[in-house]
Amino acid sequence: MQDASPTACVLVIGNEILSGRTQDINLRFLAQKLAERGIRLIEARVIPDIPATIIATVNELRARTDMVFTTGGIGPTHDDITSECVAAAFGVPWEPHPEAWARMEASYKPGEFNAARQRMATMPRGASLIDNPISNAPGFTIGNVHVMAGVPRIMQAMFESLAPRLPGGTPIAARAVHALGVAEGRIAEGLGAIQQQYPDVDLGSYPFYRPTGNGVAIVAKGTGPARLEAAIAEVAALFAALGYAPVAGEPAA
Amino acid sequence: MQDASPTACVLVIGNEILSGRTQDINLRFLAQKLAERGIRLIEARVIPDIPATIIATVNELRARTDMVFTTGGIGPTHDDITSECVAAAFGVPWEPHPEAWARMEASYKPGEFNAARQRMATMPRGASLIDNPISNAPGFTIGNVHVMAGVPRIMQAMFESLAPRLPGGTPIAARAVHALGVAEGRIAEGLGAIQQQYPDVDLGSYPFYRPTGNGVAIVAKGTGPARLEAAIAEVAALFAALGYAPVAGEPAA
Repeated sequence: MQDASPTACVLVIGNEILSGRTQDINLRFLAQKLAERGIRLIEARVIPDIPATIIATVNELRARTDMVFTTGGIGPTHDDITSECVAAAFGVPWEPHPEAWARMEASYKPGEFNAARQRMATMPRGASLIDNPISNAPGFTIGNVHVMAGVPRIMQAMFESLAPRLPGGTPIAARAVHALGVAEGRIAEGLGAIQQQYPDVDLGSYPFYRPTGNGVAIVAKGTGPARLEAAIAEVAALFAALGYAPVAGEPAA
Repeated sequence: MQDASPTACVLVIGNEILSGRTQDINLRFLAQKLAERGIRLIEARVIPDIPATIIATVNELRARTDMVFTTGGIGPTHDDITSECVAAAFGVPWEPHPEAWARMEASYKPGEFNAARQRMATMPRGASLIDNPISNAPGFTIGNVHVMAGVPRIMQAMFESLAPRLPGGTPIAARAVHALGVAEGRIAEGLGAIQQQYPDVDLGSYPFYRPTGNGVAIVAKGTGPARLEAAIAEVAALFAALGYAPVAGEPAA
């Protein structure tokens, strides 16, 4: 399914994801929020805290998609290097941002707005701020790159403050049907035929394994709800014809 | 920290991750297992079920890292296209794999090894099998690309059967210390100085927010346990000097 919706990618920056220390949950949050706004997420990458890698990846992705969302690396410690790398990617100075500086200075007791914290108010020239209602230090947007924190609740708050400014498209909707006891290999042929009839719908087939039973969920995604419902009705009929009881929606978690 | 350890990347293939339907947990599993074996995970990517994207990405990544691990897209349905795309990436025929075919045919009742299931026994010429003790249909290795299932318990079983064949390096170890009540901005300067003294150690600073309290965990990663312990001892001393009580290890979940 290709359409004229804006495209996006997510760039997760942080050794802690690639070492397995931390389970990323930012990608899924952003994926769901972007889909609701009709923005097509076409790629996600996870890269380490290496300047040359960050710079090259930011430049590759911003040239290829309408929007890039980065998470991670904008705190005050030595391993927080996203902001200066984004400046280097855009070829602009990395300098104190007057508004960010004023906000942050005002939030600390005298003498506590130290050099490390001042780094969080230092941004690529031309950046506009993304509010951080949780911990004050802002994210920022430069060009089509939106730079956000890695801590999930801060990133989520930043995204909500950024979202009204994003260009959108037709929201990507989903409909689903599932059945217990189905093997994918039994429905694959019929499902493929339905997919061919509905080229404007993405039909995904997802086996599930639950204490309440195993089966397969079929999810239809696309921008036309009526088409999704028609495709899912055909899948339900396929399930029934093969002797499985179709149940609307995804299986309970 | 750069060393002579083999490098790897993980390629997650599946619309369901980019739509936010599914929370990926395969990356973290692989990240941890690779670190234990001394294999440096240098990138992860998530891409959609689009043939040209899969082919180009497989070729880019296999040229750049010692090992590529793919997850997803090797089932029997129309959206399972990883196997044929990997064949195209290598420029080899996609054809029945005799051993996979024999194993799978033997596992079904007569007549049930249908065309959809036969696709799971169709592989790039030259592939060697990765056993699947859970659901029988094998993964495979071709060149330096290891193609595995997306369902986590199947992927995990496949990785365990593959692991003894992987080249390894010096295991990447970790040591940690944390303290409650610390703000990153208070320790950043001292932590940066410690990092400069230990260029062979990766020092990561990770704020945490728990019902039992907020604070910061410092994690040292590297191949020399004694160096990790020395670096962490210095961080503990830094915490103490600033009036925070250092606690060995990561905070409880």
